[in-house]
Amino acid sequence: MEQHPKVGIIMGSDSDLSVMQAASDILKEFGVPHEVTIVSAHRTPARMMEYALSAKDRGLSVIIAGAGGAAHLPGMVASYTTLPVIGVPVKSSNSIDGWDSVLSILQMPNGVPVATVALNAAKNAGILAAQILATSDDELSQKLIDYKLKMKNEVEEKAERVEKRIG
Amino acid sequence: MEQHPKVGIIMGSDSDLSVMQAASDILKEFGVPHEVTIVSAHRTPARMMEYALSAKDRGLSVIIAGAGGAAHLPGMVASYTTLPVIGVPVKSSNSIDGWDSVLSILQMPNGVPVATVALNAAKNAGILAAQILATSDDELSQKLIDYKLKMKNEVEEKAERVEKRIG
Amino acid sequence: MEQHPKVGIIMGSDSDLSVMQAASDILKEFGVPHEVTIVSAHRTPARMMEYALSAKDRGLSVIIAGAGGAAHLPGMVASYTTLPVIGVPVKSSNSIDGWDSVLSILQMPNGVPVATVALNAAKNAGILAAQILATSDDELSQKLIDYKLKMKNEVEEKAERVEKRIG
Amino acid sequence: MEQHPKVGIIMGSDSDLSVMQAASDILKEFGVPHEVTIVSAHRTPARMMEYALSAKDRGLSVIIAGAGGAAHLPGMVASYTTLPVIGVPVKSSNSIDGWDSVLSILQMPNGVPVATVALNAAKNAGILAAQILATSDDELSQKLIDYKLKMKNEVEEKAERVEKRIG
Amino acid sequence: MEQHPKVGIIMGSDSDLSVMQAASDILKEFGVPHEVTIVSAHRTPARMMEYALSAKDRGLSVIIAGAGGAAHLPGMVASYTTLPVIGVPVKSSNSIDGWDSVLSILQMPNGVPVATVALNAAKNAGILAAQILATSDDELSQKLIDYKLKMKNEVEEKAERVEKRIG
Amino acid sequence: MEQHPKVGIIMGSDSDLSVMQAASDILKEFGVPHEVTIVSAHRTPARMMEYALSAKDRGLSVIIAGAGGAAHLPGMVASYTTLPVIGVPVKSSNSIDGWDSVLSILQMPNGVPVATVALNAAKNAGILAAQILATSDDELSQKLIDYKLKMKNEVEEKAERVEKRIG
Amino acid sequence: MEQHPKVGIIMGSDSDLSVMQAASDILKEFGVPHEVTIVSAHRTPARMMEYALSAKDRGLSVIIAGAGGAAHLPGMVASYTTLPVIGVPVKSSNSIDGWDSVLSILQMPNGVPVATVALNAAKNAGILAAQILATSDDELSQKLIDYKLKMKNEVEEKAERVEKRIG
Amino acid sequence: MEQHPKVGIIMGSDSDLSVMQAASDILKEFGVPHEVTIVSAHRTPARMMEYALSAKDRGLSVIIAGAGGAAHLPGMVASYTTLPVIGVPVKSSNSIDGWDSVLSILQMPNGVPVATVALNAAKNAGILAAQILATSDDELSQKLIDYKLKMKNEVEEKAERVEKRIG
Repeated sequence: MEQHPKVGIIMGSDSDLSVMQAASDILKEFGVPHEVTIVSAHRTPARMMEYALSAKDRGLSVIIAGAGGAAHLPGMVASYTTLPVIGVPVKSSNSIDGWDSVLSILQMPNGVPVATVALNAAKNAGILAAQILATSDDELSQKLIDYKLKMKNEVEEKAERVEKRIG
Repeated sequence: MEQHPKVGIIMGSDSDLSVMQAASDILKEFGVPHEVTIVSAHRTPARMMEYALSAKDRGLSVIIAGAGGAAHLPGMVASYTTLPVIGVPVKSSNSIDGWDSVLSILQMPNGVPVATVALNAAKNAGILAAQILATSDDELSQKLIDYKLKMKNEVEEKAERVEKRIG
Repeated sequence: MEQHPKVGIIMGSDSDLSVMQAASDILKEFGVPHEVTIVSAHRTPARMMEYALSAKDRGLSVIIAGAGGAAHLPGMVASYTTLPVIGVPVKSSNSIDGWDSVLSILQMPNGVPVATVALNAAKNAGILAAQILATSDDELSQKLIDYKLKMKNEVEEKAERVEKRIG
Repeated sequence: MEQHPKVGIIMGSDSDLSVMQAASDILKEFGVPHEVTIVSAHRTPARMMEYALSAKDRGLSVIIAGAGGAAHLPGMVASYTTLPVIGVPVKSSNSIDGWDSVLSILQMPNGVPVATVALNAAKNAGILAAQILATSDDELSQKLIDYKLKMKNEVEEKAERVEKRIG
Repeated sequence: MEQHPKVGIIMGSDSDLSVMQAASDILKEFGVPHEVTIVSAHRTPARMMEYALSAKDRGLSVIIAGAGGAAHLPGMVASYTTLPVIGVPVKSSNSIDGWDSVLSILQMPNGVPVATVALNAAKNAGILAAQILATSDDELSQKLIDYKLKMKNEVEEKAERVEKRIG
Repeated sequence: MEQHPKVGIIMGSDSDLSVMQAASDILKEFGVPHEVTIVSAHRTPARMMEYALSAKDRGLSVIIAGAGGAAHLPGMVASYTTLPVIGVPVKSSNSIDGWDSVLSILQMPNGVPVATVALNAAKNAGILAAQILATSDDELSQKLIDYKLKMKNEVEEKAERVEKRIG
Repeated sequence: MEQHPKVGIIMGSDSDLSVMQAASDILKEFGVPHEVTIVSAHRTPARMMEYALSAKDRGLSVIIAGAGGAAHLPGMVASYTTLPVIGVPVKSSNSIDGWDSVLSILQMPNGVPVATVALNAAKNAGILAAQILATSDDELSQKLIDYKLKMKNEVEEKAERVEKRIG
Repeated sequence: MEQHPKVGIIMGSDSDLSVMQAASDILKEFGVPHEVTIVSAHRTPARMMEYALSAKDRGLSVIIAGAGGAAHLPGMVASYTTLPVIGVPVKSSNSIDGWDSVLSILQMPNGVPVATVALNAAKNAGILAAQILATSDDELSQKLIDYKLKMKNEVEEKAERVEKRIG
């Protein structure tokens, strides 16, 4: 990517990539420059600290962090930076139905918020990152409005097809 | 407030005010102009639609929405606007331990994210709103850095006192 | 359908159709005219409002609404109309075991009820709609009595077969 | 009540009365004649059967049944009658946070629906009963529309007061 | 079976048979005469009442009842008889992970117990029935002691094999 | 008690006594001789083993065991004896809402059943013990029938009072 | 304490002290030198890193870490050190019934274990720390054996009192 | 194994072996002598008692115990020995999503701790056992430090590959 990345997408393990890819895809669709890498809170805590502490100076405005199980990555990144951090709970293999990831990311103490999205909802994390950037970027804001319109149209087309088929 | 509000704080019922007040308090501390009102998804759906549709034109950049039980307010506001919407699950009286509020706000479908914070965490919603605004406001960004430092100092002072008392 | 529809069956996404079809099937069996379409609370909120506000004038007596995850469709439709709204929690792919759909539909605040049925129980939603219409339709009421009798007979036949096989 | 009751409100124990009273209150407000009594699925199963089997002939159109714990009353009444049955999960003293009541009422098998409302939501059960009766009663239907308007106005007044106090 | 049945095994649907068969199998192993049939609380409530009311006079000493979802069969049978009733929560297809069956059977009100066993644990229901009968049947009691010994031996043999393989 | 005890009531801690007392009370009401003591699975495992191994020879026919948290007492007693063991999950102070006690008692493996009753339902444990003894004791059986009748009458009297007050 | 501390007890907030005190108390009872302080994963991440990285060189053998909500402290400390880390889930005020603390501490990924004890079980954390130290300290090992004996005796005394009172 | 085993790995059933094998594998990797066998709390309680009572004298320093469902093995072993006991909740076939195993192992009463690891996390149990032994074994301690470093390097290599592929 030629442009300087504005969003950093990180995840605790490469096994999260199949879920987290969707964040990158939607940001590409919106033309938002971003970077993707692996940062493990538990296996590379120093790397995590460096990533989070340097994020703002490297030009990032938002960080998206996905993790499963006792998912500490989003919250710990948020402890090091004042950038908005979006947390994606990933339903990993030995997760207790995803509850562990959700609660470990969501239930942050006062002073250190994480903007949590739904289980496995990396796409929504990407859209939320774009919405945050759009608070100071009119062009991106217009793209989000267009995207909302496109979603509406798609539902209406599907509705028409269903009505024809069943009615 | 003389300044034009940049954050809108809404809640489903005046019984949520004791929880949601903390969002206003922390935004005041950061000097972020904001407005507070009641908008019920279920009892004033038209008012909710108008609030959400007009939010951007009225100069709001972020909306904080708190609600309990089958908490539809944050998600429905997000369906009408492309502004980032922060959802605060409120543990109301007949809630099933807060699970209903949390899941109703968090588990949004693809395309319409809500930035969910912890149960009753209105203060964190305020901080997250400030973090979002700070992506294009260096002065506010510095205030957030100072706030982080203050929290750190407070913990260290408490640590010292505990060490003296128990050690 | 020649007759004017009395029941409106709506769902948040065409992926819900495999579950919601059962509501239409049982209403056909009872000879209750109905319509089926897609209405997304989050992607087509205006369409949802129009659907709900016009429902009574278009001759509908009951609305069946199915949705998954943060399922706001049944509750929001109920906020716009005074018709009885039956909610069907759908266990969608990224649902947290269905709990999100169930709680988002069931835990409505005072003033705006949703008649919630079991997870994925679109058939029961159809029967409940027929029971509601039957409060002022003796012919339909008789069909429901016959249906109950048929269920009883089917169980008794199965019981006989089991008793023969195992006894 | 001079008029013949159209709604039967029953509950498993007199300890449920403090919760279930709200169903009677709102029906009185709507002028819907109704009766209230105690019917225990487990301690008076014969009484329950008689109540349910005779309900329609005695002129009832809807039954509201509230119960806590392993709450079998709503579902068993529904097994005996084709009238719509509204179930109110009651959070009783030894309940496991209300989950037992909710699931015992909600998760009915195919063929025998119960229209379940939120935990302790007897008021909503009353409103839902009125909505069902209103499908063939224009006067009652108008009362429900007025009630919706009143709720809207109350929220708007509260909103105004909050805006004045905090703004 | 020539002998008069002492244990009645019933279930809400023939789809429960694959789970409930294990109760019959273990009772056969213990030589306890028993009967198996289908009794649905919701689709054949009269049949259920007759079954439960006549159970003792027909010579039954224990009833095993299996059901899924809003599992009312064990509790309702217990409301009609003073025989011990053993409840088997069955994890049926649309169950919410089995929680509905477990709570609907376990959380019975004071006065009407159900002896609940683990999810899908029909085999244990059979053993428990044998234990109950063995309180007045020394021969059966000895068979249970032998069964315990056999289980112990099987574990010890498996332990030996594992120790050889891994040690 | 002059008579030889037939039921042993044990509990993990004297803090469980306020809950477990109800088992003794109802057995007294039925005239069933019983004994009460404290046996901790985790703090007195040898005492537990001796209690369970000697139970049958000391003339006990049923054991009622109550425990909270990781409640191992009922299941471990069942591992040592072939007598029917009734487990009472107790909601102790640091319990996670009682779920730990319920699941630790209920979810026993194949071969070793525990007859589990509802959370804190010591009274039902007592009734269940009586029902088990009554399978070979006609006098006790009649007392249980009388008890059922008394419960029915009490509900009907309460129903009458409620009907008068509200009707 | 004159002796060099062998166990470090840390907690995320001074509000956790009322729970965590019990770990210190029991270690005192066993004569195990230890230190107590406050280390917040989210508000003092650098302090946490330093504490964990220096723990071994400062002579600590075990770390006990207590935290509530999205409790990242135990897991993050474990990511920095190879000392055994004992995690105490604390049920804090806005916790969702303690589930968040439990799952955030327990569900650690492969490679970085945390030895988790029960909700609020700081006393058990202290005992576990002593058990770990006792693997190479015969004197401490004997104290643990004595403690087990004392617990046994206490239960037996309570049992005697209960038997006298009720028997 | 020539060397005397220091860690005992036990499990309730040979069906747990596929999960528990990982504990043995990682201990082999660290060169920690250990033994593996099957000990069922419920089917071989005497064997369990003997195993636990003799463990210390046979030279064991740590016991790892894995079990599913109402998992009593770790807690009961801990009741007999003062050695540290590590509990591995196993998600067995009829488990209620693993909650039963987790809560039965974790929620031990005061006085008898079990060091619980994540669901199915036998590998972490092995690492934790090594960490405990390493508190008095510098060579093993160095191996754990090396292992941490290796994990870090593996993550960094994966990160590089992901960055190349997506960047």
